[in-house]
Amino acid sequence: MGSPHEISSASLVSHAEVTANQAIEELHIALGERSYPIRIGSAVLDDPATYNSLSPGRDALVVTNTTVGPIYLQRLVRQLKARYARVHSVELQDGEAHKDWAALQQTLDALLREQCDRKTTLFALGGGVVGDVTGFAAACYMRGVPYVQVPTTLLAQVDSSVGGKTAINHPLGKNMIGAFHQPRLVIADTSVLSTLPQRELVAGLAEVIKYGPIADHEFFRWIEAALPSLLARDDGALTYAIRKSCAIKAAVVAADERESDLRAILNFGHTFGHAIETGLGHGAWLHGEAVGCGMVMAIDLSHRLGLIPPDYAQRVTELIRRAGLPTVAPALGVERYLALMQGDKKAEGGEIRFILIESPGRAVVRTAPRNLVEEVLASHSG
Amino acid sequence: MGSPHEISSASLVSHAEVTANQAIEELHIALGERSYPIRIGSAVLDDPATYNSLSPGRDALVVTNTTVGPIYLQRLVRQLKARYARVHSVELQDGEAHKDWAALQQTLDALLREQCDRKTTLFALGGGVVGDVTGFAAACYMRGVPYVQVPTTLLAQVDSSVGGKTAINHPLGKNMIGAFHQPRLVIADTSVLSTLPQRELVAGLAEVIKYGPIADHEFFRWIEAALPSLLARDDGALTYAIRKSCAIKAAVVAADERESDLRAILNFGHTFGHAIETGLGHGAWLHGEAVGCGMVMAIDLSHRLGLIPPDYAQRVTELIRRAGLPTVAPALGVERYLALMQGDKKAEGGEIRFILIESPGRAVVRTAPRNLVEEVLASHSG
Repeated sequence: MGSPHEISSASLVSHAEVTANQAIEELHIALGERSYPIRIGSAVLDDPATYNSLSPGRDALVVTNTTVGPIYLQRLVRQLKARYARVHSVELQDGEAHKDWAALQQTLDALLREQCDRKTTLFALGGGVVGDVTGFAAACYMRGVPYVQVPTTLLAQVDSSVGGKTAINHPLGKNMIGAFHQPRLVIADTSVLSTLPQRELVAGLAEVIKYGPIADHEFFRWIEAALPSLLARDDGALTYAIRKSCAIKAAVVAADERESDLRAILNFGHTFGHAIETGLGHGAWLHGEAVGCGMVMAIDLSHRLGLIPPDYAQRVTELIRRAGLPTVAPALGVERYLALMQGDKKAEGGEIRFILIESPGRAVVRTAPRNLVEEVLASHSG
Repeated sequence: MGSPHEISSASLVSHAEVTANQAIEELHIALGERSYPIRIGSAVLDDPATYNSLSPGRDALVVTNTTVGPIYLQRLVRQLKARYARVHSVELQDGEAHKDWAALQQTLDALLREQCDRKTTLFALGGGVVGDVTGFAAACYMRGVPYVQVPTTLLAQVDSSVGGKTAINHPLGKNMIGAFHQPRLVIADTSVLSTLPQRELVAGLAEVIKYGPIADHEFFRWIEAALPSLLARDDGALTYAIRKSCAIKAAVVAADERESDLRAILNFGHTFGHAIETGLGHGAWLHGEAVGCGMVMAIDLSHRLGLIPPDYAQRVTELIRRAGLPTVAPALGVERYLALMQGDKKAEGGEIRFILIESPGRAVVRTAPRNLVEEVLASHSG
């Protein structure tokens, strides 16, 4: 039946050292020789000190996309030119549909065309897709070169900043091909969120909300209260939400760097969510939207299993609804959902393992009776 | 100028535990939690005990090629059916020219099509190409699943059994895209060498000979004496050569699991060799042939730098010639060779670093004056 995992506030403090320096906060991700800092704050991208921890090298390659590149590429290149003799760039197509072989090959082709050596540092300037493709390319190029995450979406700032997971999608499943590869530095600049479409901001909030039910009921209550400020892009509220989300994720990852039951709790809402994304075809829903809806289904399954009372399930669902996230899944049919979830990489030996909530702030990884899963699918999909 | 690296016999014994059990020898590669055994001997493939150390799982996927599959696939499948509920197989095109994206994708597509879970074990049944593609596919699938090497060429048995290096080629360079991923087990069955074409046996001997100059002058002398037996496929001679080669490589790799100066000595002959392979187009020469010729050039460069006396350079060249390996490189032109070597991944910041011999059994990693490199290229290429 699996065992419960609780991430206490105390363990967070011990794993994440937070230092305040004017508007810039630095979170230290402790992973032995693969430790790295996350620099969070407005215009941290333009601060030369942000880059001080990087090793020198001849080449830098910035990977960005057609949406972010025209707005922010030159700001980053200006900083890199002070440190690297050659600064190259690659512009990928924007969108989850392009987290694929073609994008990976485009990046690797550029590295080889420019004869970049094994001390080259890659910079991922964009959302989660750019971060995942860049990180995987860095993992594969000459069997591993350094990379830096410069996430430009809220989702990427709170989610892909920590954990070292990189991947591309396959037509038969999401994130099926990838590597664990830690960045050397993460630059989470809140000022770049000003140009983010509202729909993407809301999708990012799904991953922020996630940390409440799985790890920190205090944080859940803070989000309930701060939701209007977050939706209005209040800088202080966003900074706190990013730091807190990264710190919780860092505590989970530091305790369990490789995938296992403990780290699996970060996938709350993702089993159902991935099925939605794959079933509709990647790109129809944003990842955060699918996760938001997936959390509604997972919290309902938790309730139907008798783990949590109905009022708490209602409260989580209500917060997701208030954030502007979808709460009704597309009508793919129960059988199709089950097949999609069985193809998901969390299934081992054909059994589907769900991330469920045992009590507010406490997750459990376990299987569930098929009839209950079918009830959840039937009552939450259009 | 780099520093010399000497692998003494004493360090070999401490790193490689050798146990004799009738005709089967087991070499233990000590890498902490990634340690694994190499089982060497005739018909070790057919011994159920060979597989005892593997973790259970539902799925096994055997990756082989169109040459080896028809001869040996069923022998391996027979053993695997006793351990796995589902045994799948993929047959790649044979040859270095197919160590590419297409082969990698063919393997990953099969894993996804069969809905293989993250406890799936991959088996590489073939030469170095199959081993490299399979190992890299195992490294990438769901960010890492276990794999077993079942090398069917002498080159793969002595070279890719140890080190955990996996990669595919790119049109602009060899082994440019890959990962470090250790196998769980290596099965080096000498009985499968009976069907190996003589040209491939000879190519494999290049990697055996290599260990003499870089690490063990005693072994070099043994090869000089045993060469006729090795060329006649004497089982005892081959077994000793495989075990000794794997043990030397293991000692180097155990001391330095990640690529660095120490491990780089394993690339003796490879800087020139890769240029030959890339310059001619992959597949024209066998890898071992290119390495054999590359060693002739590297030993000459060592001599021209005043590191070794002319008679030792002559002795190494003579052994390579007697083995039946090429000693004259294709006439690509000096400039083309220099450009190819600068694109090689061992070049950092544009400088070419060579693996040279300082004294018999002792390698050094360093750069060399351009005029001496040009002299070597001019006097050894057709």
